[in-house]
Amino acid sequence: MNNRQNLLLSCSDNEKGIKVKDNFAGLALAKGFNIVDENPDFIVSIGGDGTMLRSIRDFKHFKVPYIGINAGSLGFLPTFKSDKKALEQLLELVKNADYSVLMRPLLDVEMTHVDGEISYDFAFNEVFTKYANNKMLESDIFIDAKHFNYYTGDGFVVSTPLGATGYAIWSGAAVLKPSTPCYQLTPINPNNSSIHNPLLYSMIIPENQVLQFDIKNNQGNLISVSCDGNSYMEKDIASIKIGISRERIAIVESRDYDYWGIFKSKILGK
Amino acid sequence: MNNRQNLLLSCSDNEKGIKVKDNFAGLALAKGFNIVDENPDFIVSIGGDGTMLRSIRDFKHFKVPYIGINAGSLGFLPTFKSDKKALEQLLELVKNADYSVLMRPLLDVEMTHVDGEISYDFAFNEVFTKYANNKMLESDIFIDAKHFNYYTGDGFVVSTPLGATGYAIWSGAAVLKPSTPCYQLTPINPNNSSIHNPLLYSMIIPENQVLQFDIKNNQGNLISVSCDGNSYMEKDIASIKIGISRERIAIVESRDYDYWGIFKSKILGK
Amino acid sequence: MNNRQNLLLSCSDNEKGIKVKDNFAGLALAKGFNIVDENPDFIVSIGGDGTMLRSIRDFKHFKVPYIGINAGSLGFLPTFKSDKKALEQLLELVKNADYSVLMRPLLDVEMTHVDGEISYDFAFNEVFTKYANNKMLESDIFIDAKHFNYYTGDGFVVSTPLGATGYAIWSGAAVLKPSTPCYQLTPINPNNSSIHNPLLYSMIIPENQVLQFDIKNNQGNLISVSCDGNSYMEKDIASIKIGISRERIAIVESRDYDYWGIFKSKILGK
Amino acid sequence: MNNRQNLLLSCSDNEKGIKVKDNFAGLALAKGFNIVDENPDFIVSIGGDGTMLRSIRDFKHFKVPYIGINAGSLGFLPTFKSDKKALEQLLELVKNADYSVLMRPLLDVEMTHVDGEISYDFAFNEVFTKYANNKMLESDIFIDAKHFNYYTGDGFVVSTPLGATGYAIWSGAAVLKPSTPCYQLTPINPNNSSIHNPLLYSMIIPENQVLQFDIKNNQGNLISVSCDGNSYMEKDIASIKIGISRERIAIVESRDYDYWGIFKSKILGK
Repeated sequence: MNNRQNLLLSCSDNEKGIKVKDNFAGLALAKGFNIVDENPDFIVSIGGDGTMLRSIRDFKHFKVPYIGINAGSLGFLPTFKSDKKALEQLLELVKNADYSVLMRPLLDVEMTHVDGEISYDFAFNEVFTKYANNKMLESDIFIDAKHFNYYTGDGFVVSTPLGATGYAIWSGAAVLKPSTPCYQLTPINPNNSSIHNPLLYSMIIPENQVLQFDIKNNQGNLISVSCDGNSYMEKDIASIKIGISRERIAIVESRDYDYWGIFKSKILGK
Repeated sequence: MNNRQNLLLSCSDNEKGIKVKDNFAGLALAKGFNIVDENPDFIVSIGGDGTMLRSIRDFKHFKVPYIGINAGSLGFLPTFKSDKKALEQLLELVKNADYSVLMRPLLDVEMTHVDGEISYDFAFNEVFTKYANNKMLESDIFIDAKHFNYYTGDGFVVSTPLGATGYAIWSGAAVLKPSTPCYQLTPINPNNSSIHNPLLYSMIIPENQVLQFDIKNNQGNLISVSCDGNSYMEKDIASIKIGISRERIAIVESRDYDYWGIFKSKILGK
Repeated sequence: MNNRQNLLLSCSDNEKGIKVKDNFAGLALAKGFNIVDENPDFIVSIGGDGTMLRSIRDFKHFKVPYIGINAGSLGFLPTFKSDKKALEQLLELVKNADYSVLMRPLLDVEMTHVDGEISYDFAFNEVFTKYANNKMLESDIFIDAKHFNYYTGDGFVVSTPLGATGYAIWSGAAVLKPSTPCYQLTPINPNNSSIHNPLLYSMIIPENQVLQFDIKNNQGNLISVSCDGNSYMEKDIASIKIGISRERIAIVESRDYDYWGIFKSKILGK
Repeated sequence: MNNRQNLLLSCSDNEKGIKVKDNFAGLALAKGFNIVDENPDFIVSIGGDGTMLRSIRDFKHFKVPYIGINAGSLGFLPTFKSDKKALEQLLELVKNADYSVLMRPLLDVEMTHVDGEISYDFAFNEVFTKYANNKMLESDIFIDAKHFNYYTGDGFVVSTPLGATGYAIWSGAAVLKPSTPCYQLTPINPNNSSIHNPLLYSMIIPENQVLQFDIKNNQGNLISVSCDGNSYMEKDIASIKIGISRERIAIVESRDYDYWGIFKSKILGK
């Protein structure tokens, strides 16, 4: 029958992830789903936040919704549980299309090198940038090409609303309902000396504005950039542009999805 | 003539405010405006932020736009300058309707006392609440009537986007573009001991959600509530509800109004 | 016999405190101690931190060592446990003088009113000062009579090393080994606007230096002062002087007393 | 004559530093001092903090006092001014031994690699440690070989009292009178999730206690260590031990040296 739905399964490397994946695959096949490598209707990510972020990175080109099953220790992003009963309920929801699809923003990241070459990346949770060598980062910050601040400090985090509870809040970010049409710039340990006036506060930026960071003293300094934990060091980066992408990521959530409840239990509710 | 526009002038108590008011009144009359006490087309607030907030408090029932002239020392809210040339330009803008009117949200504040009596207030910038006696405030926080956190600490600030740069950022609030459809809850010095897990982060709340604070140990404890600097102590408050009002405040700004620029010069740009 | 030791018992108001007190009294009498109201050799404080602080306040004039039994929920200061076995062990330690006596500093607080009248208080943990009416406190800070800072913000906490883990750390204080010969000044939510440069950092002050706070706009403003939770509001305070007292408080601790271990379990180790 | 004093001059690379050095050398020779490369009686460091720290690094083996002349833009450590009159006054002070010599502590840093090899470094201001690749650092912290905390976050700064106003205060350190017999551990952006309880507060450690950091997941991860701005990346570091050295650094200061005054003007007094 042609209305069998295709699930592409992606899981964490560890034992727990692989075991949940096998259980889920068995239950899914029994319920009439196909397990596929191509042409998926859904990407099923099994693990913690890292697995979810890697799944988005690996399978974004399929442009299909993601289902996150939590088989990690903390796991803020994957909201479905991994015990047998929960997996069966999840499969029922999918079969009956009895779920919400929440469209989540992505950050577009454009890095211009000193020689004019441009490289691109993106982030579902957050981008952060520092010098790799522990020196203070100095950067002019522009909002929509207008000069805003001469920043000095460890670096900065730019996060989506959903990504605020990752690295960003340890640096002082506010927590946002993921549906808020904006993103956030958080300075990391700004160096507030008597000769500099760096941005000291986290800033909520509307979706239609674009940030640009012109890196000072970039020649010879390794810049460390991390997009959703995908870290690399780049030499000679002159400028980084970050803004909200036109593309969205579709996430399947249960109809009683409650962001503040997840925040409460995962972050506050020790 | 019936198309003469009526200006109601409100100014700070100090010499500077009164002098600017007199200058402005003279220029306005010369340009064909009326200076009135009733039926205004505009409220002109001359002073700093305190004057602007008091003008909103005093003249909100007129439901007309506000024009803020900065005759204070810092003055984040009133954006028009007070020298003669600037005042003339402002009057030209008003005459020609060559300005933007920005609709700013208000917070509705509803305080329920132990005996069931309810009193109301509102805030354009922020509400904050503490115990008056320096004791730790304990409060259950609800979002849309759902329990969210048992808070312990100095108290909390609830601020509009425009009000974030007032008291809220000293407590850890993020800065927001005033057009962002939300408000903010910022805990003040949360008491993060091993037996309590109070909210530690500033939270961006969507406009359609309502916060409620059920105050613990309220009997006999004086609660200090401050709405836009309008402070009073209340005994026996059982519960405080705060949300975005249906009512908006109309603010006249020049067409090149640039919030990030104001934030840069007034807060960062020492 | 004249070598029977006299114990003065002080306990919290609640059921738990009274029960532990009764148990302890029974065991102490059986072991040959006297329970007294006058001429004590030791003050035994049974409860949490509040009880301990009140015991010090009530019985400081006896100039004898304190023994803290934890019958509260958190209890950072009283370090002896309250089960039967622990109480018996404690009585053995006291009988055999098998303990350490740690001399802890006190803060002297001297408040000068506008009319020149002076009142005094002291604190074992911390003093904090704010305006009672939620307005920003403005104060000149002097160190050893030399002007140091024009402070604007919620107020300030001055804490002993042992008192840093009370209110002070929620405001940004550092944690100190209680034997460090110093005390600490921590600003509470400093108002860091473009026209003020208040102290933004917690400061470790040597024991021989004296702080003085000259309160601005004091006339008509109620100042709220809290010494170890003993809160009161004062009108027309012109100046507050705080420094380390010559007097020390003797605290009995077991020989394996480990401050970092207590800090770990009571504050970090949720 | 054998009572001519030997000055070894060390200056910053830039034009300003070189010019002040030339001026100072001319004045010193005229006043009967020798300018030397070996057997100095004093090291004269001309520049900002970086120059001072490099001078200490380069000439510590001479075991002679340092004189810091400020020819930098901020310069917290070098306290003598660089105009002609100030340089002449300084030379008079030195000639007449009319100065204070302040003995400042050093931090000893001992890094043990996975293969058991040990390398050493030291710091006058601060040591800080992070992963080089932007990942969260995980480390067991020990105080005097006793387990204290499982830390997760960006990393940590360990600073001397004089070094607290460098990198440490941007991470939340307290400011200390440099004579306080202690050093400080400040966590950098601790990752306070629901599954970890990292140290969240800056800690003042007595001089006689030793810190040890056992780095988790060290294999393959580059650790970035910075001692007084001397940064390097190390692979496979298993453990870092930090404590106060037996060695002190002697710094020449004028008799009216006022640390709080310097702190006020260099850090607070924009």
